[in-house]
Amino acid sequence: MNDSHDAILDAVRFDANGLAPAVAQDHSTGQVLMLAYMDREALRLTLETGLAHYYSRSRGRIWKKGESSGHVQRVRRVLIDCDEDALLLTVDQEIAACHKGYRSCFHREISGGKIVLVEERVFDPDKVYEDK
Amino acid sequence: MNDSHDAILDAVRFDANGLAPAVAQDHSTGQVLMLAYMDREALRLTLETGLAHYYSRSRGRIWKKGESSGHVQRVRRVLIDCDEDALLLTVDQEIAACHKGYRSCFHREISGGKIVLVEERVFDPDKVYEDK
Repeated sequence: MNDSHDAILDAVRFDANGLAPAVAQDHSTGQVLMLAYMDREALRLTLETGLAHYYSRSRGRIWKKGESSGHVQRVRRVLIDCDEDALLLTVDQEIAACHKGYRSCFHREISGGKIVLVEERVFDPDKVYEDK
Repeated sequence: MNDSHDAILDAVRFDANGLAPAVAQDHSTGQVLMLAYMDREALRLTLETGLAHYYSRSRGRIWKKGESSGHVQRVRRVLIDCDEDALLLTVDQEIAACHKGYRSCFHREISGGKIVLVEERVFDPDKVYEDK
């Protein structure tokens, strides 16, 4: 679709499994929403469509964030780190990033020797994913 | 040093190489500073000392962030994601996170088919690392 994407995709140092970690951050609040992985094709799709695509290691396939839930991520910025082996997306997150119903996947804090819930649910996963 | 850390360390799902990605975020501004990796011992040292420790895949050893540069990260919060395989630290970053002299390792943006510098240097790495 765009020759210039090839040069960018070539610049990313995907690991031995063809993956690079990608952090999604809420563009307006700065909240870190999730960490997932992209392969070359997921990054290409993300750049071409403006919607975040990742590679699911458990499912072994590319997945458009929100394809089941509708909770898509509209990509505002894509940054690359100094080693070219990690990506940072700032996104407009529809509803919530976490499949467990929380805005962020990082909704628990290690505090005082315990793991403590620090966010409230914003949706009920049983309802959003009820036809799964 | 603290039994309760063992329970937390047991809860983290380190990968086949014994590592988990850890994102460091500026506690006050929300800027994402870097992505690195922790093994069990690096996370233990981080929890026990309050200073971020990572595992360097290139050097094959644990490294205290800032051990050469003095640019330590004082950890304010440690969050864990829903899959227990990624960590998020909010930190007070001394000077800058990136060894190339930028506040963040994510100082370049993929924009208009190019990779564009979007930050200015805050220190000169030739001076900070001159005795290396």
